[in-house]
Amino acid sequence: MEPASTPQLNILLAVLPPILAIVAMAILYRQVRNSDPGTERMQEVSNAIRLGAIAYLKRQNLFLAAFVGVMAVVLTIGNFNFRTGQPDLRLTTAYVAGAATSAFAGYIGMLGATLANTRTAQAARSSLASAFNVAISAGSLMGLGVVGLGLLGINAMYYFFNDPKIVLGFSFGASSLALFAKAGGGIYTKTADIAADLVGKVELGIPEDDPRNPAVIADNVGDNVGDVAGMGADLFDSYVGCIAATMILGLTLSTKYVLLPIYFAAMGIIASIAGTLFVRSLIKVRKGKDPGGAFDLGTFFTGGVFAVFAAVVTMYLNTGWNYLIAAAAGVFVGFIIGKTTDWFTSIDQRFAINTAKAAKSGAAINILTGFSYGQLSVAPSIIGICAATLVAWYLGGIYGIAIASVGMLSIVGMIVSADAYGPIVDNAKGVAEQSGLEESAIEIADQLDAVGNTTKAITKGFAIGAAALTVLALLGVYSETVGLKTIDILNPRVLVGLFVGTIVPPVFSGLIILSVSRNADLMVSEVRRQFKEIPGLLEGKPGAKPDYAKCVDIAAKGAIKELLPPSVLSIVVTIATGFLLGKEGLGGFLVGSILSGLLYALFMSNAGGMWDNAKKYIEAGNLGGKGSDAHKAAVTGDMVGDPFKDTAGPSLNTLITVLSLTASVFAALLFG
Amino acid sequence: MEPASTPQLNILLAVLPPILAIVAMAILYRQVRNSDPGTERMQEVSNAIRLGAIAYLKRQNLFLAAFVGVMAVVLTIGNFNFRTGQPDLRLTTAYVAGAATSAFAGYIGMLGATLANTRTAQAARSSLASAFNVAISAGSLMGLGVVGLGLLGINAMYYFFNDPKIVLGFSFGASSLALFAKAGGGIYTKTADIAADLVGKVELGIPEDDPRNPAVIADNVGDNVGDVAGMGADLFDSYVGCIAATMILGLTLSTKYVLLPIYFAAMGIIASIAGTLFVRSLIKVRKGKDPGGAFDLGTFFTGGVFAVFAAVVTMYLNTGWNYLIAAAAGVFVGFIIGKTTDWFTSIDQRFAINTAKAAKSGAAINILTGFSYGQLSVAPSIIGICAATLVAWYLGGIYGIAIASVGMLSIVGMIVSADAYGPIVDNAKGVAEQSGLEESAIEIADQLDAVGNTTKAITKGFAIGAAALTVLALLGVYSETVGLKTIDILNPRVLVGLFVGTIVPPVFSGLIILSVSRNADLMVSEVRRQFKEIPGLLEGKPGAKPDYAKCVDIAAKGAIKELLPPSVLSIVVTIATGFLLGKEGLGGFLVGSILSGLLYALFMSNAGGMWDNAKKYIEAGNLGGKGSDAHKAAVTGDMVGDPFKDTAGPSLNTLITVLSLTASVFAALLFG
Repeated sequence: MEPASTPQLNILLAVLPPILAIVAMAILYRQVRNSDPGTERMQEVSNAIRLGAIAYLKRQNLFLAAFVGVMAVVLTIGNFNFRTGQPDLRLTTAYVAGAATSAFAGYIGMLGATLANTRTAQAARSSLASAFNVAISAGSLMGLGVVGLGLLGINAMYYFFNDPKIVLGFSFGASSLALFAKAGGGIYTKTADIAADLVGKVELGIPEDDPRNPAVIADNVGDNVGDVAGMGADLFDSYVGCIAATMILGLTLSTKYVLLPIYFAAMGIIASIAGTLFVRSLIKVRKGKDPGGAFDLGTFFTGGVFAVFAAVVTMYLNTGWNYLIAAAAGVFVGFIIGKTTDWFTSIDQRFAINTAKAAKSGAAINILTGFSYGQLSVAPSIIGICAATLVAWYLGGIYGIAIASVGMLSIVGMIVSADAYGPIVDNAKGVAEQSGLEESAIEIADQLDAVGNTTKAITKGFAIGAAALTVLALLGVYSETVGLKTIDILNPRVLVGLFVGTIVPPVFSGLIILSVSRNADLMVSEVRRQFKEIPGLLEGKPGAKPDYAKCVDIAAKGAIKELLPPSVLSIVVTIATGFLLGKEGLGGFLVGSILSGLLYALFMSNAGGMWDNAKKYIEAGNLGGKGSDAHKAAVTGDMVGDPFKDTAGPSLNTLITVLSLTASVFAALLFG
Repeated sequence: MEPASTPQLNILLAVLPPILAIVAMAILYRQVRNSDPGTERMQEVSNAIRLGAIAYLKRQNLFLAAFVGVMAVVLTIGNFNFRTGQPDLRLTTAYVAGAATSAFAGYIGMLGATLANTRTAQAARSSLASAFNVAISAGSLMGLGVVGLGLLGINAMYYFFNDPKIVLGFSFGASSLALFAKAGGGIYTKTADIAADLVGKVELGIPEDDPRNPAVIADNVGDNVGDVAGMGADLFDSYVGCIAATMILGLTLSTKYVLLPIYFAAMGIIASIAGTLFVRSLIKVRKGKDPGGAFDLGTFFTGGVFAVFAAVVTMYLNTGWNYLIAAAAGVFVGFIIGKTTDWFTSIDQRFAINTAKAAKSGAAINILTGFSYGQLSVAPSIIGICAATLVAWYLGGIYGIAIASVGMLSIVGMIVSADAYGPIVDNAKGVAEQSGLEESAIEIADQLDAVGNTTKAITKGFAIGAAALTVLALLGVYSETVGLKTIDILNPRVLVGLFVGTIVPPVFSGLIILSVSRNADLMVSEVRRQFKEIPGLLEGKPGAKPDYAKCVDIAAKGAIKELLPPSVLSIVVTIATGFLLGKEGLGGFLVGSILSGLLYALFMSNAGGMWDNAKKYIEAGNLGGKGSDAHKAAVTGDMVGDPFKDTAGPSLNTLITVLSLTASVFAALLFG
């Protein structure tokens, strides 16, 4: 008898935790909403940001609905049963549900985040601890939303269709949405950021978040659509993807191995809720000191709670300790990669400091130095992934790797919470600056923001590691689906597939960065125009107001226009490769894309973070401080790094997941 | 009866052509030497360059002799026959011979090039055709030297040891020398170039090649040690590597297939000699118009002559048309890659022009644009290599790929000639500027230089393509040597090997670019110091002379110091991977390094070329011309691109060849 299949147990272990997460999400939303929104001016700024963000997300999602519609038709036709003359709508349903759920989670998270900025700023007027409390509540709202909705969706799909392969369709829906959300949000956020910096900081020498800058609201909106909604969609995608992949691979063992990833993920949700509460009380006890350390401790605490609960599940289901150890290895590697990222990008480590020092010899040497350290930084993370892969494989074959990815992503609720905290406090600082709040409040906002930058960097590393293990699991699913026992590199189709696969990530990131520079160019002209044509704007005369809406509009239009070609291209190239090179060739293609995708994702995230912190190091008063030649050079470096770390780099995780899912979902059509 | 084995035929087909090349080399050397060296001031400048280059090469080669000595000891111990108690010195001998021959070819080529600069400048005072004649003679000296000495060396090794595997040792010697020569020369040249530009162009606004700039001689020396000696060693390495690999793979067929690559290469030498003569007479007939077109026609002509002679050899040996077609496919892909590189980097194509336009929004957008186009530019070349791989494989399996690489490299004599022409005319321009020659002579030197930039870009693309096919052939040799029938990606050791392999090229290039920026930093301080401390230097007062030797010394010391760690690291990592992951894992490692090496090499060469030509486009008077803000931004972009295209990018070809050869040469020790 397999205890796993009793409905009561299933509800307790699989359904209850995500519902708990959703309830917690609702409570947090109320809490944030009921906080003091601050002065009228603050609310005005915050409203402008919220409206801009909502308007963009609506536009993006409307546009994506059309794309999802087209894909739904393709999937329906592809799965049409010509023998019986009956359509098989299961995959289509799952696909649409996945896309819709992901969009919904992103929307709610962003709503919470945009409510929280002014409220965090207002709370910063009383104390750091209370400001932190508002920000982390709103962040957790997003984190718990992602895992709650994700796991509930998986449960629903599995309950209705009782077939892990259909759950993969849910994952494919979430993935294609994530690709667009990351690409579009990434283009949006960096268009605004670069344009604001280029004209504001570099040309006119006015500070960041200055209300005179016409691009400032667009910049704040960008943080939300890029970092909150985009990153949420990305981790939603990896989360759902790795669970679905593990379920399919579990099918070859027995039913309880299909349920194991769901249960592990559910235990991770409980651990994440506990971790969030832990961080909040830690901050209260310590009276707001060292919020960065609180996050670190919170993540360790979450990992520990997960391990205990997962052990209970393992004992009860009798699935063997091997898989628990594999899952623990996944959690561990997640930590390692996060910490490496932190080490390479942190403002008080040699890499960022040397990059800052190089700025004394001008922008070129600053850029070359950050670029080179970025190249070096790929090594520890990839070696960590290799170690986890080897350990997990020897413990449980390809299923072991899959369960390691589930382990790593089990604590994603906590990770996304910490990540979403970043743009919230960043925006809070923006609101405080633009509303002319007192120095003490701005200082607290600044402190919170510094922590946010570190958590953002760690999350990026974590997201890349999670995507890496997930796509390896998906590679297993692909071979399983098409019936490949080996993928032999000495077969020329595989070799050529590998080569072609490696091209996709650089071409994708090239296209997307070009989009950012094209779009930023447009906005730069607009910002320059406003400073020239609106009298008294630069001098800050009362009554001289910039036209924020115009910049918001340029960012949104450009992002929507530019996100389609690279995203569609990647799906089309995958199908074309399968068609031309066969199933072995497509296997090589997937591996090639994983290899170069991982390299570029790590390099771009880390180099971008390094340039950013090199600039911040100088702004903190070192090497001549703000306004020095070194600072100008470092600002240029940071602008180069911006689309690396916030547009192209993080899109690549999603890209490789989408490629793998496309291959598996279309396998039946291609090789059926 | 196999006609291939008669000694007379062998001498006619295999030994005579390289001897012919060496004789031609000697004649060209005399011709260059006997040309008019120009005014006293010109000779003074030229002597400074020559002495600096010779001093550096001596230092580098002395240093490398120590390294070669250590490796020779390792190889001797590794091949010690413990059963008989006898040392087996064959591999060691071949290794040392390979390193020495490559060093000698580079030295002679550089000697010719440094003699030719002032003589080209002097000839430019009478006509473009005569100046071109001197420059191409000196370039051909290098080109013919590479192929003549390379093939003669292979013949000698095969004659003495009668075992293709020992010939591979010759190739390994050439490769390890090439890695150091490229890395060291690349660091040297860009240290000087960046420092000269940074202080001269950016900070003080004085023109390029201005004699007041203390770094100007070091910059000119750098062109010779980097582009002449370095590129020569690189192509020597690929040339010898692909012939040796094909010989080993031919062993599994029959003796005539061992000889076929030698004969094809020999026919290529004859074609290259014919091609060089053709280009020279074309320039004479056209009275010096369009030297760029002459090179293009010359390359086609060389390819055509090769095809005819190779067809005769094929008929005579009766080796089947398949291999001739595979070789022709190799030549064809060489053209394609060269032309793609040209298209992406050319000053009159949209990529460079758009990159220039982006400079109007500052250095960051200029850099991002070039970076992105560079990412896109990898696609056509890799697809070309894939096409050649598939065609060659279906025609003749792995031997087919090997013979395609021989085909591609058969015309390398012509390619290196065209490439070495580049730094010669660049230096000629430098000599002309520094000696204050009349405007008309400088203009002619400028025209020749513009063509040189294009030929340099094409050669880089060609070198990468050649290295790609060569390493694929070497992968075949590796599998053959260790007895691997399949390299299965679903084997976790292979998968992990792939991951680890992909790390090596980015880490190597990161280390080497850091060396350049560290070293350039030192030289920047020195140049600034001289301008500050030498009275009247900036104003150009007579008697105020910069201390050129100091800069030459900084570049040389830094290059020698910095070239060792990345180069040794790459060899050590290969052996360690084999030790830890076994022969399958090492196979995966090699493939991983090829995949990412190719991506980075193409990206870096093309992006670097684009930034360079974007700057030149502005300097030609567009978008505000010299001195405008756009120009300053483009100069920064060019400085970022300099170590990409001239240090890291081209070193990567050599790196992946060295990794493959290390694996094969140490296979017996690791898995024996």
